[in-house]
Amino acid sequence: MATTFDELAREVLRFRDEREWGRFHTPKNLAMGLGIEAGELAELFLWKDDAEIAEALRDPAYREKVAHELADVQVYLLVLAHASGIALDDAVRAKMTLNAQKYPVEKARGNAKKYDEL
Amino acid sequence: MATTFDELAREVLRFRDEREWGRFHTPKNLAMGLGIEAGELAELFLWKDDAEIAEALRDPAYREKVAHELADVQVYLLVLAHASGIALDDAVRAKMTLNAQKYPVEKARGNAKKYDEL
Amino acid sequence: MATTFDELAREVLRFRDEREWGRFHTPKNLAMGLGIEAGELAELFLWKDDAEIAEALRDPAYREKVAHELADVQVYLLVLAHASGIALDDAVRAKMTLNAQKYPVEKARGNAKKYDEL
Amino acid sequence: MATTFDELAREVLRFRDEREWGRFHTPKNLAMGLGIEAGELAELFLWKDDAEIAEALRDPAYREKVAHELADVQVYLLVLAHASGIALDDAVRAKMTLNAQKYPVEKARGNAKKYDEL
Repeated sequence: MATTFDELAREVLRFRDEREWGRFHTPKNLAMGLGIEAGELAELFLWKDDAEIAEALRDPAYREKVAHELADVQVYLLVLAHASGIALDDAVRAKMTLNAQKYPVEKARGNAKKYDEL
Repeated sequence: MATTFDELAREVLRFRDEREWGRFHTPKNLAMGLGIEAGELAELFLWKDDAEIAEALRDPAYREKVAHELADVQVYLLVLAHASGIALDDAVRAKMTLNAQKYPVEKARGNAKKYDEL
Repeated sequence: MATTFDELAREVLRFRDEREWGRFHTPKNLAMGLGIEAGELAELFLWKDDAEIAEALRDPAYREKVAHELADVQVYLLVLAHASGIALDDAVRAKMTLNAQKYPVEKARGNAKKYDEL
Repeated sequence: MATTFDELAREVLRFRDEREWGRFHTPKNLAMGLGIEAGELAELFLWKDDAEIAEALRDPAYREKVAHELADVQVYLLVLAHASGIALDDAVRAKMTLNAQKYPVEKARGNAKKYDEL
């Protein structure tokens, strides 16, 4: 996790550009692809309860499947951020600043309610 | 994009832990949340064609909405990777190595077919 | 639930056509919209465990929210099936016939494994 | 499409109950499953533009794939509606009544904007 977002984005875009897939990579297609990969990721957790998932994650073969699906989501996210002219790290920090206002520590602590129900 | 995955994960987890949300953050809930955020991201592109999206992305207010939704997906991804004991940067590289075998440059160039149809 | 799929599809398409939304309703957009609505539906269950959801479903206001999101998914499904020239009822029966082969009662009983792991 | 929602729900639930899958079918799992199936459906349209999809839908093998994925979404929807005590046909009509207020014909005609932007 010592890689910067910039470095990993560059590696992913090089992989993509070597295959000349750029013209398929419109924001709309990438957002659709990201949703599909999110579904494949979720499939690994469906039908299992939390204890079964914790147990399964100790198995390297299962954890590798999870890693592959996490990677697919991350790849789409990096390419979509690039296509949208958005820096992911800045975006996360800006969103956390916003969320800190919507979910002040004192009100949100230990509480899964949405901000408009707090 | 000069931030490392480790640094951003630490910031996100600190935000989370200050609010004591960790006990809700099972891999299953996080994967479900990630899919929901992917849907909110996609909503920004629905009903628009590629030219309209390119145009809309020049508007800072629209681009900020996209940034917020990209951020939400990235946050869930960082927390889910952490909960699963997986390093996102390593996972992306391992997946690209695998994809390089499934999609060799000569066969995949300019082609959006799935590897099993190449 | 005494309505036929045909009747409900006709009502939905009439609503759509009165608003001249047909030209936006390509299969691709409809599939994307369906995924977005599936996310909004899932959001009603996120952060709640099964007992909390069972409890919440006794509240008419919450059940109405669930009903609205189920309806949105059903609407997209009816319109997408129409746009694809597919009869939903036939499609479900054909898929169940297929699933009956993949998941024979004796092997699948009480078992959430995927057919290729049975 | 002459089947009623009730009839198809009964067939799907019989299939399910013969396999004793009911205990896995909590609303939360079903909503997650529905999202996953929505992703598999979307995958059939990803990377294709509208003209390519229209062309592909003329191929019976492709249309069958679409039908299978539509069916999977419909199955989850029927079972989730049942688990939530909601009649899908009533829910669709109630939602259309609501949408008719949010999207009056005169304002919404030919317009893909969200109601709060109309």
